[in-house]
Amino acid sequence: MKLMTGREYVSSLNEYNPDVQVRGKKVTRVADEPLFQPGINAIAVTYELAHHPKHQDIMLAALADGTKVNRLNALDYSTDDLLKKLEMVRLICKWTGCGQRYLMHDALGALAEITAMIDADKHTDYFSAFQEYLLHVQKHDLTCATAVTDAKGDRSKRPHEQADPDLYVRVVERNRNGIVVRGAKANITGAPYVHEFIVLPTRAMQKEDGDYAVSFAVPVDAPGVKIIAKPAGRPEDAEAPFSSNFGQSTALVIFNDVFVPWDRVFLCGEWEYTGKLAEAFANHHRHSCIGARAGLGDMIIGASALMAEYNGLPHTDVPHIRRNLGELIRITEGFYATGVAASVYGRKTVAGNFVPDAVQSNIGKLMLAEQVYDLFRLAHEISGGIVVTAPTPEDMAIPEAGELIDRYLVGKHGVTAEERIRMARFLEDLTASKEGGFYALISLHGGGSPEAMRMSAVRHYDMDSQKKHILHKLKCFAKWEGTCKECETCVNDDLCEQECESVTYRQDR
Amino acid sequence: MKLMTGREYVSSLNEYNPDVQVRGKKVTRVADEPLFQPGINAIAVTYELAHHPKHQDIMLAALADGTKVNRLNALDYSTDDLLKKLEMVRLICKWTGCGQRYLMHDALGALAEITAMIDADKHTDYFSAFQEYLLHVQKHDLTCATAVTDAKGDRSKRPHEQADPDLYVRVVERNRNGIVVRGAKANITGAPYVHEFIVLPTRAMQKEDGDYAVSFAVPVDAPGVKIIAKPAGRPEDAEAPFSSNFGQSTALVIFNDVFVPWDRVFLCGEWEYTGKLAEAFANHHRHSCIGARAGLGDMIIGASALMAEYNGLPHTDVPHIRRNLGELIRITEGFYATGVAASVYGRKTVAGNFVPDAVQSNIGKLMLAEQVYDLFRLAHEISGGIVVTAPTPEDMAIPEAGELIDRYLVGKHGVTAEERIRMARFLEDLTASKEGGFYALISLHGGGSPEAMRMSAVRHYDMDSQKKHILHKLKCFAKWEGTCKECETCVNDDLCEQECESVTYRQDR
Amino acid sequence: MKLMTGREYVSSLNEYNPDVQVRGKKVTRVADEPLFQPGINAIAVTYELAHHPKHQDIMLAALADGTKVNRLNALDYSTDDLLKKLEMVRLICKWTGCGQRYLMHDALGALAEITAMIDADKHTDYFSAFQEYLLHVQKHDLTCATAVTDAKGDRSKRPHEQADPDLYVRVVERNRNGIVVRGAKANITGAPYVHEFIVLPTRAMQKEDGDYAVSFAVPVDAPGVKIIAKPAGRPEDAEAPFSSNFGQSTALVIFNDVFVPWDRVFLCGEWEYTGKLAEAFANHHRHSCIGARAGLGDMIIGASALMAEYNGLPHTDVPHIRRNLGELIRITEGFYATGVAASVYGRKTVAGNFVPDAVQSNIGKLMLAEQVYDLFRLAHEISGGIVVTAPTPEDMAIPEAGELIDRYLVGKHGVTAEERIRMARFLEDLTASKEGGFYALISLHGGGSPEAMRMSAVRHYDMDSQKKHILHKLKCFAKWEGTCKECETCVNDDLCEQECESVTYRQDR
Amino acid sequence: MKLMTGREYVSSLNEYNPDVQVRGKKVTRVADEPLFQPGINAIAVTYELAHHPKHQDIMLAALADGTKVNRLNALDYSTDDLLKKLEMVRLICKWTGCGQRYLMHDALGALAEITAMIDADKHTDYFSAFQEYLLHVQKHDLTCATAVTDAKGDRSKRPHEQADPDLYVRVVERNRNGIVVRGAKANITGAPYVHEFIVLPTRAMQKEDGDYAVSFAVPVDAPGVKIIAKPAGRPEDAEAPFSSNFGQSTALVIFNDVFVPWDRVFLCGEWEYTGKLAEAFANHHRHSCIGARAGLGDMIIGASALMAEYNGLPHTDVPHIRRNLGELIRITEGFYATGVAASVYGRKTVAGNFVPDAVQSNIGKLMLAEQVYDLFRLAHEISGGIVVTAPTPEDMAIPEAGELIDRYLVGKHGVTAEERIRMARFLEDLTASKEGGFYALISLHGGGSPEAMRMSAVRHYDMDSQKKHILHKLKCFAKWEGTCKECETCVNDDLCEQECESVTYRQDR
Repeated sequence: MKLMTGREYVSSLNEYNPDVQVRGKKVTRVADEPLFQPGINAIAVTYELAHHPKHQDIMLAALADGTKVNRLNALDYSTDDLLKKLEMVRLICKWTGCGQRYLMHDALGALAEITAMIDADKHTDYFSAFQEYLLHVQKHDLTCATAVTDAKGDRSKRPHEQADPDLYVRVVERNRNGIVVRGAKANITGAPYVHEFIVLPTRAMQKEDGDYAVSFAVPVDAPGVKIIAKPAGRPEDAEAPFSSNFGQSTALVIFNDVFVPWDRVFLCGEWEYTGKLAEAFANHHRHSCIGARAGLGDMIIGASALMAEYNGLPHTDVPHIRRNLGELIRITEGFYATGVAASVYGRKTVAGNFVPDAVQSNIGKLMLAEQVYDLFRLAHEISGGIVVTAPTPEDMAIPEAGELIDRYLVGKHGVTAEERIRMARFLEDLTASKEGGFYALISLHGGGSPEAMRMSAVRHYDMDSQKKHILHKLKCFAKWEGTCKECETCVNDDLCEQECESVTYRQDR
Repeated sequence: MKLMTGREYVSSLNEYNPDVQVRGKKVTRVADEPLFQPGINAIAVTYELAHHPKHQDIMLAALADGTKVNRLNALDYSTDDLLKKLEMVRLICKWTGCGQRYLMHDALGALAEITAMIDADKHTDYFSAFQEYLLHVQKHDLTCATAVTDAKGDRSKRPHEQADPDLYVRVVERNRNGIVVRGAKANITGAPYVHEFIVLPTRAMQKEDGDYAVSFAVPVDAPGVKIIAKPAGRPEDAEAPFSSNFGQSTALVIFNDVFVPWDRVFLCGEWEYTGKLAEAFANHHRHSCIGARAGLGDMIIGASALMAEYNGLPHTDVPHIRRNLGELIRITEGFYATGVAASVYGRKTVAGNFVPDAVQSNIGKLMLAEQVYDLFRLAHEISGGIVVTAPTPEDMAIPEAGELIDRYLVGKHGVTAEERIRMARFLEDLTASKEGGFYALISLHGGGSPEAMRMSAVRHYDMDSQKKHILHKLKCFAKWEGTCKECETCVNDDLCEQECESVTYRQDR
Repeated sequence: MKLMTGREYVSSLNEYNPDVQVRGKKVTRVADEPLFQPGINAIAVTYELAHHPKHQDIMLAALADGTKVNRLNALDYSTDDLLKKLEMVRLICKWTGCGQRYLMHDALGALAEITAMIDADKHTDYFSAFQEYLLHVQKHDLTCATAVTDAKGDRSKRPHEQADPDLYVRVVERNRNGIVVRGAKANITGAPYVHEFIVLPTRAMQKEDGDYAVSFAVPVDAPGVKIIAKPAGRPEDAEAPFSSNFGQSTALVIFNDVFVPWDRVFLCGEWEYTGKLAEAFANHHRHSCIGARAGLGDMIIGASALMAEYNGLPHTDVPHIRRNLGELIRITEGFYATGVAASVYGRKTVAGNFVPDAVQSNIGKLMLAEQVYDLFRLAHEISGGIVVTAPTPEDMAIPEAGELIDRYLVGKHGVTAEERIRMARFLEDLTASKEGGFYALISLHGGGSPEAMRMSAVRHYDMDSQKKHILHKLKCFAKWEGTCKECETCVNDDLCEQECESVTYRQDR
Repeated sequence: MKLMTGREYVSSLNEYNPDVQVRGKKVTRVADEPLFQPGINAIAVTYELAHHPKHQDIMLAALADGTKVNRLNALDYSTDDLLKKLEMVRLICKWTGCGQRYLMHDALGALAEITAMIDADKHTDYFSAFQEYLLHVQKHDLTCATAVTDAKGDRSKRPHEQADPDLYVRVVERNRNGIVVRGAKANITGAPYVHEFIVLPTRAMQKEDGDYAVSFAVPVDAPGVKIIAKPAGRPEDAEAPFSSNFGQSTALVIFNDVFVPWDRVFLCGEWEYTGKLAEAFANHHRHSCIGARAGLGDMIIGASALMAEYNGLPHTDVPHIRRNLGELIRITEGFYATGVAASVYGRKTVAGNFVPDAVQSNIGKLMLAEQVYDLFRLAHEISGGIVVTAPTPEDMAIPEAGELIDRYLVGKHGVTAEERIRMARFLEDLTASKEGGFYALISLHGGGSPEAMRMSAVRHYDMDSQKKHILHKLKCFAKWEGTCKECETCVNDDLCEQECESVTYRQDR
């Protein structure tokens, strides 16, 4: 098994020749494209950290034979693995804002479970195709983009009802060697600078949507794949101290009659499993998002605390600054905790891998989705208007003006105007710029809309047990001792059996 | 009295020759500077609307002699004037995002009250200087920037305690003709493209800060004034359908030993009135901000409703979209209502003009300050990820890619991809771009920090009356009839006089 | 026209002989029933206040001929009347918690509008019947309970679909003298101690529900009316300093084949108007609720401020207490402001009376519905656990224990334990007792569920105008001057006519 | 080691003879006092559950020698123990509302840590006294009340500054056998029906407060101890289906010169440790509160879901009901997750036992403190006004009225009025009654005020590490590879050592 360095990952991109366009120009060498550098940097960090002894406990996972691979390429085999994955994502995102590559981890986890499930039900052979593919990914330490969101067209209509049949990716041909697919996937994170794509269905489908029930993997440069990408972060922007270095590109990826050999097909026509697969991916991914945004929260907290000090209003002295910083902590650690609970209460699938508890992963993602806006607000309240009103770098470069700025924008004694402005700009970059807007929206809609999470959390919740508990209580809750005369289910002297059923315990105890 | 057209306003800027720099370059002709066009446009609208018959009832105010002036240049003489001002600001900002010019209205209202108050207490003659200045402004239909926020340095220290004595604007010389001032004012809205500056103190001061107790007016090109400005909006940005047209510049304005003749000085040394003046301005301005952000809310609501329709998910059919749109309405109309109440419960000053109720104006500004982030969140939840992931205009311009985008980014039948993307970009511009970040921060910190409003609302609240009511109640509230034996204040047969005192009525009934 | 005193109102109840039962016993003389005293007291206050000179400006309304009647019995004829009604309700509820009688004012306003509307459309003669009834109410200064909420049965089914046809009140017989009605109305405020009932439909109905489309008035003791009432407040409870004096009874009122003469019938079969009538009532009533709960907020604010002082932590000194008190003010004045705006933007009906703006009245009611829980929370945070842990009055009465309590439960120097405990108990009564729970639920569900308000606010909102504004903007918003070449609607030199249409102005300017 | 049954616990109370008074009467036999039954029942359940095989994994803990004791009497020796404790508390409180007895668990954990710490620093011998006491508790399977909150008097003054020196419990005498203490503790949960009291200081003290720095244990009937208790729950109230069975008494406990032998003294004069001890207890206890209120949330969720069904509006069909139920789940599972995270990130003390992560336990307690009000609101919105307007049991008992109620208060077909009313009353009991108010306030203030948690969370947060991370980032975050030239701390090729320090890992990995 290979563990590439960051530099090796960048070089490896030259072995592919994808059809990529960004801001109206065709990209010939992805690894050298300045508009993608922040995105490439961020993924490089996921390779680098795996070489660092201090982080290897969470960055690496052991296969059955003891070999170590990057955890991003591995399945989770215990609740502890889930927890380490969460911590890994937080670490990566605290470094880079968004490491992008965890999407592949989430897709792999979902495919393991659902291919095994289909095979068990239908005697198909998807799981071994998947396992072979997993080995391929691990062997070469690949980065795959995960393509889920279809073009969708009219959101009130199902795939086969759309005016244009290609608004969801579909199988247009099946032959003995493989299948041919057509359509487009939107908002694909990291698309231009990955090695492969893993494609999953975006929603539950019904019988009439059978051709749209398809999942597969292809190299980034498979014939017929076209990538229309946006720049990653704010490359080459002097006002972007963070996102000129780390960002992420999203792309519209068109599959124009792309051939996929059978050993890369993981679902083809089994429409009853599309919802399960989409939901399984969402569950893993929402769990990852919790770690990711905790890393963003960490950065916002640190920068806000410093900004307050630079203004002469440290949180240790000023009650309203402390209260607001406390809120930042409450929000960040609050939703992070749901990721921990989702790990601890994870459960084992038919494939043997573990998945996070779906109630916790959904409510956690929902919390961060809505609260990322509160993080921004609190950071701004702590920091002050300078976050958006600081003079431009060009003004600071002119000696006369620079001197005046140096004089008048100082904060606390000992802190220069430049330091204050740099911190303000860092916060503007993260929270009040195009990049800030981007973080807000991917927090809100990445991994599904808030409404999808609200639905999903309720659907996975064991409401029957809660209702049974109350019905029982209303009959005999006074009876903490003795046989309950009213309730036939009280089968022992002391406590109702039925009652006991309503308590959930962790699976792996 | 003059009522300039928008075009006349733009031309009039050429009569001034301010020392302005933006993004590192010296500006020779402000009216022609592309980086300021969005800001100039927005102010031009405030002139244009005053000529439109449909809007003149709210855009114009009548002086004592019946002459009409732009309401932005007028004092408020009744609660109805306050309400019309609020409606005017909403109209302007629904057009332009931020009309900027209402800051001068707010400064004039505050100066009227406080100069009259000082004269009454100290037998000074500031009020007539102010009245003369008001006439000058009205006669020429001027736009003045209002400069309040000082450089401030270490925010935990008062003006005279700062390491550098010039971190708050101060009087460095007084002579028979006038005064000489030095210092800087930060975050000055519209600074480069106005006619004059009105300068106010930023906070309450104490005796030792006497030299910092100063208020005055000077032309934008007074010798010694230097303006380091930021671009207004996102000029010349193809991804900015709104803010390439309407925006606002903020600037650092340096007063480098600027001479001010006595007839333009409105406060000089009377430190006891600095807090009152700052608070009076804040009260007017917070009231204006309520109207301003309601106009922003209007735009966000309209665009979100359309975006939902374009996605095929109209709020009339989809419960969670309706709920979110309902929240947008609740927030916008909710804080707007405080502006109405602040008007209705306005009170008359010693100068004869009216000021909004300070409890309502403060809570309203606080509500919008915090809720502007919720407006963004809700707009994003309604609209979807396309707000930030839409392909760039350059990609759309390439025929092959453009065709694919046209095909795959369509929404509801009958709505083209281009329309959807244009609406997405409009929302990105308002809520998820540098401009969106700007709106967030000026909503939060414009007119004072949220903490300032929290303090101010409580300070102005008549807590004594509420406490008296309860103390009375606990003694004799059972006694709805007859003389209360326990409470000596019950002086009539039926109801307590003391009780009655705790009820507040509108002043102008 | 009569203006009864409180005592006269109480006596007047003896002229009726309703069939009332409370807590399992038949009530023979309502005016003497201890379990109803708090409710009777509260209504008596609405009579008393009308005699007090200080309050008559808001407590009385003038009829066309100048005669004064209690405003609770009058229609609103201007936006100022709406505002005074709001202030009146706040005053009454600050005294009594809930004055109950404003429900009749709201029913009268709705009946005026809708009977006039039906007559105009269908040439019926309901409006004159209504006018005659109004005169009757005013002449005798009556209190009517308003009965709206039907039994409803299965909430997912419409009236005619219910298993039992009587689960909504319906007409079972029509003859030349009048109609006979059967069914039950639930949660009727003040039912046992009023003079008459005004009955309105609870929802929009369809053709098949025609027999359920009925509105009428009957005396409280009409044959066939049976009232199963709950006690008002917490009568005779030593731990209830407030609600042993002021409270409200709610009742299930059964109409067991009750005859109603035609001159008391206001709707009979015109099912198309049931929704309009229900909504019209809701609109008036939600407006009233805003005033009512502001009065509750006033009491909570005063008591919380005092409690903080008694604990030695006055809001003037302690930042977190100040912040929490500030939140109480923000909430109370925040939703109250929507009542003011609903008044100011009220509109005239075909009947000539005024109705509050429905967007504002709905969002205001929604705000208070959800925020009453926040009021409780903040009051508790300010006051401390003593609100529920104070020793019982019986313990305090025992000398040895009383002495210990006096010693150990003192607060700030100079405040006795008894004073502290009394204030704690007052807050417990209002916010943490059965009465507190009652206030919470009537705030939430009185006048319709929160969901009903969410729907209603969106339905009344002028979304078309907002969408038109944005569509126009996206075509030509850059064109603040000159004719817009893209937009044919730009008919004058300066501004678009179409644009202008999207601005709403107050009706009575 | 003993494991009493519930019945044995009740009998064991007869071996004590405490000086107890409730509602003005002296209690001679606590076990038979009806006003305490709900509290006694709830504690009995904590004994019963320990005998039930299904629950023993979480109800029992193993000592070093393998003996099993009730986990409530045991220290936590791993992060898994912390998690099981959390689950145990949730189980108990889902049964009983509040098991009360976990306060002793929390006190024991705090005493273990701090006595060991003092001994290590000062060579005292408190830890062995504590260990002996722990063994005593375990051997007899005792229930101890934990007494923390002092009388406090003027909250703005410290203990020695109070007008009355006894407003905080203090040592009035020290002799060779032990100490004599005087003062009072307020709001003591379960006080009348426990075996012993564990007394802890309520806050950090300073040198002058030395006599107030005291911690000890005494039997409930130690001479000089007097208990003025409130009834537990709503005993014998026909409208209280839940709290007539399970509740908790709180009491004012007076220590009137009570003698404590040295082997029961755990702190005496070491004022520097009072804050540590108070905070250590708070940390354990806030963690427990998270489990406790999750149990309350479980009950509210189950009952709300049933109520919605009974109304004919099941959450599976009705979007706004589903959204509200989803919110209930989000809140309950959201704060519960912080308890899980506090467990997982727990740390080992010098005494060898484990304590929860203080940031997580504080934010979790803060979340539930504020959100319990939201739980109530959502339950009410789902359930409707019937929660407080259901007819009284006495009315239902009268045949004629009962029949009408049966007819008109039915809900969904197949659900009787009685079932609906019973469920409504259950919800009223939990959320809109005196008991509901009690749950609200103990959630808010139990274990310290919300402000205490806000302070505590920030104080325990590793802000230095977050700031260091940002400062480092602003210097060299672009350098994901190679040696950073600007930052001297970058000591290896790939990643900064300094950076790495800012990442926190779990302790027991």
